[in-house]
Amino acid sequence: MTGSPTFLTDFAALSAIGATPRGGVDREAATIADGQARVWLTAWLQLNGFDVQIDPIGNLFGLATLVPGAPYVLLGSHLDSQPTAGRFDGAYGVLAAAHAARGVLASATSGRFAPRFNLAIVDWFNEEGSRFAPSMMGSSVFTGKLPLETALAVVDHRGVAVAEALTSIGQLGTATAPDVVAYAEIHVEQGRGLAETGVTIGIVESNWAARKFSVLITGEQAHTGATRMSDRRDALFGASLFVVALRELADEFEVGDLHTSVGRLDVRPNSPVVVPREVLLLADIRSAHATVLERADARLAEIVSEIERHSRTSITIAETHAWPVQPYQAEGVQLAERVLAQTPYSHVRTVTLAGHDSTNLKDVVPTVMLFVPSEGGIAHSELERTKDSDLLAGVDALTAVAAELASGALTSTGAAA
Amino acid sequence: MTGSPTFLTDFAALSAIGATPRGGVDREAATIADGQARVWLTAWLQLNGFDVQIDPIGNLFGLATLVPGAPYVLLGSHLDSQPTAGRFDGAYGVLAAAHAARGVLASATSGRFAPRFNLAIVDWFNEEGSRFAPSMMGSSVFTGKLPLETALAVVDHRGVAVAEALTSIGQLGTATAPDVVAYAEIHVEQGRGLAETGVTIGIVESNWAARKFSVLITGEQAHTGATRMSDRRDALFGASLFVVALRELADEFEVGDLHTSVGRLDVRPNSPVVVPREVLLLADIRSAHATVLERADARLAEIVSEIERHSRTSITIAETHAWPVQPYQAEGVQLAERVLAQTPYSHVRTVTLAGHDSTNLKDVVPTVMLFVPSEGGIAHSELERTKDSDLLAGVDALTAVAAELASGALTSTGAAA
Repeated sequence: MTGSPTFLTDFAALSAIGATPRGGVDREAATIADGQARVWLTAWLQLNGFDVQIDPIGNLFGLATLVPGAPYVLLGSHLDSQPTAGRFDGAYGVLAAAHAARGVLASATSGRFAPRFNLAIVDWFNEEGSRFAPSMMGSSVFTGKLPLETALAVVDHRGVAVAEALTSIGQLGTATAPDVVAYAEIHVEQGRGLAETGVTIGIVESNWAARKFSVLITGEQAHTGATRMSDRRDALFGASLFVVALRELADEFEVGDLHTSVGRLDVRPNSPVVVPREVLLLADIRSAHATVLERADARLAEIVSEIERHSRTSITIAETHAWPVQPYQAEGVQLAERVLAQTPYSHVRTVTLAGHDSTNLKDVVPTVMLFVPSEGGIAHSELERTKDSDLLAGVDALTAVAAELASGALTSTGAAA
Repeated sequence: MTGSPTFLTDFAALSAIGATPRGGVDREAATIADGQARVWLTAWLQLNGFDVQIDPIGNLFGLATLVPGAPYVLLGSHLDSQPTAGRFDGAYGVLAAAHAARGVLASATSGRFAPRFNLAIVDWFNEEGSRFAPSMMGSSVFTGKLPLETALAVVDHRGVAVAEALTSIGQLGTATAPDVVAYAEIHVEQGRGLAETGVTIGIVESNWAARKFSVLITGEQAHTGATRMSDRRDALFGASLFVVALRELADEFEVGDLHTSVGRLDVRPNSPVVVPREVLLLADIRSAHATVLERADARLAEIVSEIERHSRTSITIAETHAWPVQPYQAEGVQLAERVLAQTPYSHVRTVTLAGHDSTNLKDVVPTVMLFVPSEGGIAHSELERTKDSDLLAGVDALTAVAAELASGALTSTGAAA
């Protein structure tokens, strides 16, 4: 194989939408730029013979009928991005899915193989969760983990609801999502495992567990100049102690066993001459081992008590989103290995530390998740980069996997077609 | 004296503008609520025989002519507030000035004393500096420390300029500010010195030095889940180390010698699954001793280098506003002591830790600054409280000081009248 011929020019065109000066994109869910990326994808799909439909949570499907009445093999990822993010995260997977589906369609049309299922690609709505929490929203609604009405009512920090935001970009659909028998997704690795070892394709066999929680630190407003230090109940001091302690907690475990972070932190009233009364932050701890997360949780409880005493604040923690360590189906991993053995591309089994839409999909249908290398493992950054040759190899790999899935190799329900 | 009879009802009416549920106010500079407070004051002044004029930076003057052609003794403070602040901070001083001026006018009109100067009261624009930096903006322009054009061009975090904000509330004036020979201001203490010792009136003889600076911590965006801990350059981790270190720096000095704070902190991009690339915070260090600030500065430089290494971030510090330890004129302090000796109110010399408009005014004209007690020393908080009896005592004290100033007791230029 040599890669889908127009992939790189198509990807450059898609990457120009919401482009940032440092080579990334800024396309948070249901923003103007996200809407434009979706319209660009719609045009590409229509021009390549797909029927485009949008469901009520804004998942955008491109459907190709090969076997009338049969269910679909679904390929996809997400076009939305974090603020000032890399251009590969999600968007690569959506465009690779479109090119892979086009490739499989061409093979089927030319009679090179006999499909047992139809093919569809998807842009899952709001995988990132930066504007509207939680992340993986579209695939969570699709898989029944999140009620549609709950998702539509989520508001951003300006009070705009998902339903309103989707309507404003013309992407609140009414279509019924297709009946899916298998799912495949490809993504840049978001880690440096493949890049460091020089392997081209990663086959995901499991995901790390994650616990996301909000932390509210409450103190009392005071004058930054006039109030005695000993009289202060400084919520930002308490929050800063928490951020530092959470970072240092990772060092209490074996190297690489625990990842901890605070990505978002809001200070109230956030005025130069006022000791802050309240800080709300969103924290995130992840591990490949459930026991590590349990121990980290227990340590956090101790740390929080100590911070409350030291900073004279009160701290409450609420879990906002969590998922356990879970394997991807073994038959999907084996299928990918079998298919990749027929290609020139080196491959290895790996795990995903980040959540993906496939993390949801694997709970309801057989799922294959592939990675291509990311230089330096840089993720959620405009500096994220993947080599052209790896991008093209990934499209080839996904195309081969999609053909295998469409031929019914994996699904026990294949006979139904 | 028994206090100005309608003071408490007037103060309750003023406090209802921009009132918050916890008994405070929310009237940042040039907001709708600030505009309404200024219109309420205008009405009060007009109904009590003052001529109201607004200068080009929005300082609102109420002028009373007793001696045609003579310069003015000015009394005042500020009506703007921090976000969710106490109702006494600034507003008490403006209304006390209005009542004191009315009292002196009545005395002069009834022939009980012979004024040598005219009387004016002022609401200085934007003392707080929370929406538009720097603080004490109106009095800084009035005293020639800040160019008018610079002040008018300052923008808030939404990009609205001072000139536009003042225009939108109808408070961008064209009047020439009055010629002033002396200034007096009264304020709630913003510390617990008077409340703890049971003294009613504080006479300010000096101010603490302050250094305010912005700190930019720069790292690199990454994925909170997937990026190895050792690969991260987390700007929020660096910022949190700074907040903690700045708080602990205060403990390296004698108790009460150094006050340190971070009131404002903004995270970029501030997204739940993104390791922050940049944090901008505003810090504030104050002391009664210039040498303490110098030693604190030197220690900060060491601390910052250490944080840069530990968090793999880079940190730049820029001074945004500073003032030295400076005495109020001795003759003003003595005048206040002489006047207060004629009243039933206990009094004591004190210092101000916070900045006030009088900090600017004392550099250009003889200035008297008085405090009334604040329960528990609470400041920049909706919980700020001062007893009614202390409020009324303060109005009496300011009235007596104003009469003395208007009679020319203090100013060497008094003979000019």
